[in-house]
Amino acid sequence: MSEPDVLDEVTPELVRRVEAALADDQAEDVRSLLAGLSATGQAEILEQVAEPERDKLVAILKKDLDPETLIELDEEILEDVLDQLDSKDIAAAARELETDDAAAIIEELPEQERQEVLAELPAAERAEIESALAYPEGTAGRLMQRSLVKIPDGWTVGEVIDHCREATDLPDDVYDIFVVDPEGRLRGSVPLGRMLRTKRPVPIADIVDPDIPSVPASADQVEVAHLFRDKNLVSCPVVDVRGRLEGVIMVDDVVDVIDEEAEEDILRMGGVGIDDMHAPPVRTARLRAVWLTVNLATAILASLVIGQFEGAIEKIVALAVLMPIVASMGGNAGTQTVTVAVRALATGQLTAANALRFIAKEAAVGGLNGMIFALLMGAAVVGWYGDWRLGAVIAAAMICNLIAAALAGTLIPLSLQKFGVDPAVSSTVFLTTVTDVIGFLAFLGLATVFLL
Amino acid sequence: MSEPDVLDEVTPELVRRVEAALADDQAEDVRSLLAGLSATGQAEILEQVAEPERDKLVAILKKDLDPETLIELDEEILEDVLDQLDSKDIAAAARELETDDAAAIIEELPEQERQEVLAELPAAERAEIESALAYPEGTAGRLMQRSLVKIPDGWTVGEVIDHCREATDLPDDVYDIFVVDPEGRLRGSVPLGRMLRTKRPVPIADIVDPDIPSVPASADQVEVAHLFRDKNLVSCPVVDVRGRLEGVIMVDDVVDVIDEEAEEDILRMGGVGIDDMHAPPVRTARLRAVWLTVNLATAILASLVIGQFEGAIEKIVALAVLMPIVASMGGNAGTQTVTVAVRALATGQLTAANALRFIAKEAAVGGLNGMIFALLMGAAVVGWYGDWRLGAVIAAAMICNLIAAALAGTLIPLSLQKFGVDPAVSSTVFLTTVTDVIGFLAFLGLATVFLL
Repeated sequence: MSEPDVLDEVTPELVRRVEAALADDQAEDVRSLLAGLSATGQAEILEQVAEPERDKLVAILKKDLDPETLIELDEEILEDVLDQLDSKDIAAAARELETDDAAAIIEELPEQERQEVLAELPAAERAEIESALAYPEGTAGRLMQRSLVKIPDGWTVGEVIDHCREATDLPDDVYDIFVVDPEGRLRGSVPLGRMLRTKRPVPIADIVDPDIPSVPASADQVEVAHLFRDKNLVSCPVVDVRGRLEGVIMVDDVVDVIDEEAEEDILRMGGVGIDDMHAPPVRTARLRAVWLTVNLATAILASLVIGQFEGAIEKIVALAVLMPIVASMGGNAGTQTVTVAVRALATGQLTAANALRFIAKEAAVGGLNGMIFALLMGAAVVGWYGDWRLGAVIAAAMICNLIAAALAGTLIPLSLQKFGVDPAVSSTVFLTTVTDVIGFLAFLGLATVFLL
Repeated sequence: MSEPDVLDEVTPELVRRVEAALADDQAEDVRSLLAGLSATGQAEILEQVAEPERDKLVAILKKDLDPETLIELDEEILEDVLDQLDSKDIAAAARELETDDAAAIIEELPEQERQEVLAELPAAERAEIESALAYPEGTAGRLMQRSLVKIPDGWTVGEVIDHCREATDLPDDVYDIFVVDPEGRLRGSVPLGRMLRTKRPVPIADIVDPDIPSVPASADQVEVAHLFRDKNLVSCPVVDVRGRLEGVIMVDDVVDVIDEEAEEDILRMGGVGIDDMHAPPVRTARLRAVWLTVNLATAILASLVIGQFEGAIEKIVALAVLMPIVASMGGNAGTQTVTVAVRALATGQLTAANALRFIAKEAAVGGLNGMIFALLMGAAVVGWYGDWRLGAVIAAAMICNLIAAALAGTLIPLSLQKFGVDPAVSSTVFLTTVTDVIGFLAFLGLATVFLL
């Protein structure tokens, strides 16, 4: 994803001009620079403009701020922007948004301001947002919107079309019409295209698709995303425990979920949190320090292992020079295995059904590459130090460590998953502990036995 | 993404039962086990069943194989499955698929078989697939489908509806109708929902949305994905260099692109390729060996640095025990920075406009954590070895290396991006080279100056 984005409307040049105009307090210039931007463009500008200028920018935009901009903002920046808007502004923005988006924004507010904003809203919208907030974050109930076309199962195509022509509050992005029975239970759906192609007197029941997927309001958003992906859905109805139609989830909300999840996995594997980029330095440092402390503990563990062999190192200093190579190769080979395992677990390609085969393959790969790099490294050491026994020791240690890396790289994420811990978060730290300890132990241990 | 997927139809239990039925050659059992599965479900089974059984499974399914299954398969497995189907089977599958999907499958075939499959297709479909294959992989032209509703700009809503009722070959997933001028140039689009709400005599020109985004057929699929995400699109028209409407890209194809790109970034950062999981062991080992060789070179470089200080290590063996801690902490802190930088570059949050601010923040974070871990580690070493000068040396080295890690962690991906290299692929290896070299150099160098 590193290609320059020619379709992108926000260029570094534009950001610089906005910052310059803000620094000079040229409110009109700022407004005209931002005039043609989409909500995402506005959001990108807000994210890229630095702190004191950003506050000015929000003050200038205020009522011109596209409500959609708020939902595109990174959480850290959103809190910042909301701080500067009063309850009336926020309520006005919330009224223009879909229920799910409005709920996501109101949730960020402190309890008291949240009540103030809700009080500014008309009763119907307040009730909808409150019922969305009643579902936990990350569930289908939170993700869904409530405005949809719901049709009794006795109507004809003509009646449905007339109903749509009369209703004024229909969302513009309707793609499917949902059919319900008298109790409000979902009976199926009709794609708009199909309805358009059907003659008016045909009963809607004749063209309804009864076998459509639906999700319970309590379903996890990650599962909902899987479902959209697997069935190539554009929208999916959400039902309550009795099968009654509650709302509909649209694909664009799911795209955001897919993005977020992939982003989270990437960042977690690198030992950082999801809001790392926009947090102030002290907060970022504190969040990252947790991970570094864990790493320090494992590094100390590894150096305790080295400490056991001080005598050997004192006699053969070359051991100190060469030992990081064995540990580093193990760490890298293991990271390759862990990366594949974590992704395969996340995408459902690695399960109890094929875990044994996966472990066997990784062990084979580790053994193969272990032998290749054992030969390479052994030969290099013989050339370097002219000592074939030292070469043989490093070769043997390399094979040991690459096989250990393969086993640890598969067994660690599988075990973490089994115990309900996200393997993306902690696999690598356990892995490098294993590859450092085994790497130093094998190399220095074999050296002690065969070289002293 | 590690929660168990309750909506998932393919359980390890099901895979095991399929494998057992295949081992006993119970073709009927296999068919009934797979009967209710979606295309994605079939694909998952094919991916999880091991090699000799998989061939049997393909032989049993053959004509029952849902063509959609083919497009869900991992590339390695797809090649395997295609090997066992003859040209007629593949042509039959291609006819049922959208042009873009059919092209993606036919592209996997060796040249001769590709010609055979194309020869089996009716002329019109062959021409469509050939013209899709004329666009390079990863472009909008390849991603688009050609079947769409194209309407002259002089029609009324009634005429459009009648046209849709008469046309039998309309795709079921039509969400927008595209309006073109007499030269075939795109004039705008009308969402189906809006058309349904409009009275028959209204001219289509009155309700057309002229300001819709469109992409050139040569646009990169990653940019297309950005556009869908930024504008929350469900479909997007594709035009040729003269602005003539060529086809339409649907959101479900874009979801696949987003998935693939995120997947690629994750795997690349871990030093593995996109088809690593399903490749046979020898091929996986060979692909990974490339990355391990690069790592070996950097590890040797680091050990050459250590080699310069053999004299110091001989006198103070504690240096050998402690030096991996300094290097490891630098590597981990740097990985945190690199991860954030690579993601921020990929998502367009880090640009020339805010690069300096980003670097300054990372340096501050590095300095802060450097001081914290310098204190911790310094105190630990004083306690461990009772030598406050050794403690001071490791503390100073720790601060140096964490600041170096922050600078390298930002400058390396920024420079790679500038020179057109994907920062996800190679940032970490350059980074660990820097943190190993600086880590050993600072610690052993300071020790030589102050302790000997």
